[in-house]
Amino acid sequence: MNILITAGGTSEKIDDVRKITNTATGKLGALIAEEFSKYENFHVTYIHGSGAVIPPIEELNAIDVSSVSELEKTVVTLMAQKKYDAVIHSMAVSDYSVKSVSTAQETASVIASNLSKKNETDLNSIIKESILQKSSSLEHKKISSDYDNLIVILKKTPKIIGLFKQIQPSILLVGFKLLSGADNDSLLEAGYNLLLKNNCDFVFANDMNNVNPESHSGILIYPDRSYSELSTKREIAETITDKVIKSLKNKERQN
Amino acid sequence: MNILITAGGTSEKIDDVRKITNTATGKLGALIAEEFSKYENFHVTYIHGSGAVIPPIEELNAIDVSSVSELEKTVVTLMAQKKYDAVIHSMAVSDYSVKSVSTAQETASVIASNLSKKNETDLNSIIKESILQKSSSLEHKKISSDYDNLIVILKKTPKIIGLFKQIQPSILLVGFKLLSGADNDSLLEAGYNLLLKNNCDFVFANDMNNVNPESHSGILIYPDRSYSELSTKREIAETITDKVIKSLKNKERQN
Repeated sequence: MNILITAGGTSEKIDDVRKITNTATGKLGALIAEEFSKYENFHVTYIHGSGAVIPPIEELNAIDVSSVSELEKTVVTLMAQKKYDAVIHSMAVSDYSVKSVSTAQETASVIASNLSKKNETDLNSIIKESILQKSSSLEHKKISSDYDNLIVILKKTPKIIGLFKQIQPSILLVGFKLLSGADNDSLLEAGYNLLLKNNCDFVFANDMNNVNPESHSGILIYPDRSYSELSTKREIAETITDKVIKSLKNKERQN
Repeated sequence: MNILITAGGTSEKIDDVRKITNTATGKLGALIAEEFSKYENFHVTYIHGSGAVIPPIEELNAIDVSSVSELEKTVVTLMAQKKYDAVIHSMAVSDYSVKSVSTAQETASVIASNLSKKNETDLNSIIKESILQKSSSLEHKKISSDYDNLIVILKKTPKIIGLFKQIQPSILLVGFKLLSGADNDSLLEAGYNLLLKNNCDFVFANDMNNVNPESHSGILIYPDRSYSELSTKREIAETITDKVIKSLKNKERQN
């Protein structure tokens, strides 16, 4: 059986030196890969962010990606080459990438110039469009530290979680939802919404406040909205692996 | 003798999960710390960014910092407690921190509202000030992924390299300059400017394109604008350590 695991975090370049990244380490994804490696006939492909933990597994197919767009290309290429049975999408994928970088002064000039050219009937939209249309005025090498301010415009990235079942509809899909400062009800709500929206088989939902080097707790949500409470990285990894393997065996029996 | 080494990179929070960081790993700073540990009577304090390499040295005083403001406080506190003989400031310190996060729509509303209130004699400055005065409208937990765009306003951070001689004027200072896509002349120019501006004893200047896992080259610049070309991390670490120790011994002899 072929298992695709994504782990760690993506990073989006502001310039050659600076980047927007997130707090993901890849530890949980690596533990899940280790769990699968304990069973026979499971081959793990491990797509991970730069600097993420790489599980110490023989014959691991590990692929390093940086940006969301690189992740997207890698997933599409891999899934065109091989049929996967399950994907554990634990990677923290950036919701936004960098559209442009400029200064307040330059952005103001563009807005002022657009305002003077047009009727001021809809001030708000002219300004909004001017802000978003402003292209990068700063070099994409290393932006100088001499500016008093920088305006970084971010745009939404495509949702990678939607890709897997689009390409291989019969794949088993485990999604992950990370919130910050959420109570249990909001966590279940957000996780279950992710499950419904992307037709996930399981979603693990957790909160930043419960992710520490010492402990890691959260809930594994099922399609009937029931869930299991899990309280260590090891327990999370074991439970997800166990549920995925049982589901795959069930499927196999039904065919 | 007390040596203060800064290594790795700082990171500035956009929210609880997302951050702006840089490509620094701390490898070079860790190697320099290792070099000093080979000599007797050199005590290293190692301030490093989260995730940076920690040198395997006994009795190392390692201090983890995240943001520029945390780095600043740590340097001020340490230098108030103890006299240092030299500081090797290899940390890639963010030139910008996050001032506010909002959307183009909200920023446009603020600009439009300010424009309607004032005389339009200086459109540009009203718009510029409106952009910069816009406070964060988004919660500082985890910003939703539902917005089409985000406007992140960055402001300049204080230059940490200026702090060291300000607090302890007799300290020996090694500065670092990283460029991207620069030719040799620009590298020397930029490095020497850093040396003059901050009264450094040495500056190591290098270019992103010459920093790889396999090799690392750059120039160590002296106060008379002469320089040594160095071509591996080990050679850079050895040369900097050697020059610093010789300078400290010279100083001692003169006193």
